[in-house]
Amino acid sequence: MLDGTHSIFFQLFEPESSTFTYIIGDQISREVAIIDPVLETLDRDVQLLKELNVKLKYILDTHVHADHITSARRIQGYLGGEIGMSAHSNVRGANLHLRDEDIISLGNKTIRVIETPGHTNSCLSFYFEGKIFTGDTLLIRGSGRTDFQEGSKEKLFHSVREKIFSLPDDTQVYPAHDYKGFTSSTIALEKTYNPRLNLNLSFNDFSNIMDQLKLSYPKKIDTALPNNLYCGVKPLSVFASIQHHDSVPEISTDELQRVLGTSEKFTLIDVRRPEEFTGELGHIAGAKLFTLGENLTKELQRLSKNDNLIFICRSGQRSQTATMESLNLGFTNVANLMGGMIDWNEKKFHITKEST
Amino acid sequence: MLDGTHSIFFQLFEPESSTFTYIIGDQISREVAIIDPVLETLDRDVQLLKELNVKLKYILDTHVHADHITSARRIQGYLGGEIGMSAHSNVRGANLHLRDEDIISLGNKTIRVIETPGHTNSCLSFYFEGKIFTGDTLLIRGSGRTDFQEGSKEKLFHSVREKIFSLPDDTQVYPAHDYKGFTSSTIALEKTYNPRLNLNLSFNDFSNIMDQLKLSYPKKIDTALPNNLYCGVKPLSVFASIQHHDSVPEISTDELQRVLGTSEKFTLIDVRRPEEFTGELGHIAGAKLFTLGENLTKELQRLSKNDNLIFICRSGQRSQTATMESLNLGFTNVANLMGGMIDWNEKKFHITKEST
Repeated sequence: MLDGTHSIFFQLFEPESSTFTYIIGDQISREVAIIDPVLETLDRDVQLLKELNVKLKYILDTHVHADHITSARRIQGYLGGEIGMSAHSNVRGANLHLRDEDIISLGNKTIRVIETPGHTNSCLSFYFEGKIFTGDTLLIRGSGRTDFQEGSKEKLFHSVREKIFSLPDDTQVYPAHDYKGFTSSTIALEKTYNPRLNLNLSFNDFSNIMDQLKLSYPKKIDTALPNNLYCGVKPLSVFASIQHHDSVPEISTDELQRVLGTSEKFTLIDVRRPEEFTGELGHIAGAKLFTLGENLTKELQRLSKNDNLIFICRSGQRSQTATMESLNLGFTNVANLMGGMIDWNEKKFHITKEST
Repeated sequence: MLDGTHSIFFQLFEPESSTFTYIIGDQISREVAIIDPVLETLDRDVQLLKELNVKLKYILDTHVHADHITSARRIQGYLGGEIGMSAHSNVRGANLHLRDEDIISLGNKTIRVIETPGHTNSCLSFYFEGKIFTGDTLLIRGSGRTDFQEGSKEKLFHSVREKIFSLPDDTQVYPAHDYKGFTSSTIALEKTYNPRLNLNLSFNDFSNIMDQLKLSYPKKIDTALPNNLYCGVKPLSVFASIQHHDSVPEISTDELQRVLGTSEKFTLIDVRRPEEFTGELGHIAGAKLFTLGENLTKELQRLSKNDNLIFICRSGQRSQTATMESLNLGFTNVANLMGGMIDWNEKKFHITKEST
């Protein structure tokens, strides 16, 4: 929707988890944010963002979702942008650690961050141009559950009644989910008709209602949470502990040697020229030869964006370039081998040296 | 959504048929229209309209739907309003027979009717406040099928390219269905990215695409169409032929006598006092005694809104009041017996006369 306020607004739906994803932005600068993107609809959302001819500035999750895997990291791999999460979440890899009343800008427009804990302890709501994106804190005629992930009935009640309900009555409410076919509400409607949180109810009323909910354990929580704690892509342990240098993730030869003995699966990509691969320094057993500037790009495009890649060259310079290229192509679990084959040889790790 | 333009806008979704229902209106007068309401979500929609504290002025269907049953007649039974359908449709019982460029008003705002045949021959689109409601003519990155209900590829292509695409580029597009989780688009996006109808495609391109669609027969068409040809409630044959007097449907004693011998199922409700029911004029065999002004209202509330009811009294006066009351309660297949028991007796039809 491109309305008269020069703002950009699209609401999208993922039916398996009944999740709403939102694209909000500024028509003049064409800067946008995406809120709560879902893995299942990654391709649709990336394509729409490309078609809209916008600059993706922020990728925001209202909270660490338990019912679906966020596509935040993968979208970032395709389109860039900064991932923003609550500063109180345990998520690794976010670029922005958001706090109450933080302001982030899209052109001349602003998104106001509102901490609304209760469904989880790190739930955020986002206010933009007369709309409040409430995540699982306030749903249309409902609310999020409060029985796991540090949920708190007291905090949710306070977040809705003292913070969200303090917005103007005509503020439009856009939640992270709906299960009845609603797509939006208003503060006025929820103050009056929300069966759990309307102004006629006390905290005790709310508490009793929540205690009587017979909710089943979320089907996907056991895969969703571990991934969402890494912006949607749980790395192999080797990638989880990786350091970044000039924005390029790096792994030491010691660490690579250690994990080569574990069950973790990744692809070693040697980006040198063929004569180096079979030359004096040899190559690590199992490495594939995809030469930088020659067949590397084409070969990378054949791999799954979820593959775990480690790039290798002579000294770690060319493989840094290759790692950067893979990040630009949308890979996320990648690392550059620091010191390259020179360092590997110095440590006297086992290598393969072809007979000449 | 109550936005800065003082218009009312809500988008609602019915997941079984993936249908969008819209409520549009004017905040000042609080007059609204509902577009493409669905039987399955009748209760939700009636409740929302009540909560919004609005006056339902129009109930509009973009076309005679084949994939779901409209709730138009039933909503009218609850909330009033005029049912508007294309003048080219064969639907019986609509109050407004809409034609191209008709203007219907909601307060000081207007809905412009645009004939957009192609998916069916009587498809309408509705333009309101920068939004075009396109039914099944233009879908987001798609179009309606054209292989039944007098569908026509030529007409659909013309409707989209010459009529809908003549609207300003930033007009928001709201279709009757979406199957990919989109909720809105714009004219500009569809002109560029609609894979069937973008401006780079010729009619031959479109025709070839449509010819190659392998679409299955709509699952619900055989129940949807017969009902939708009567605004969603296919009457028993007796009700289909019924005349209306002062907005009250009426049946003659001759016609009632005829259908009593058929297999059609309805409930005869005698609204006289108990002493009349067992008195001189007797009562029709099988009639229930629900006295007007006494137990009638309570008993009606126990019945299903889909029941077929015929109201009876001495002369047809009190039963006219009762028929009106049933319409106000949301019943749709109802009729008043003209002339009542006096006429029935004069015709010497069989009656039951209790022994006194």
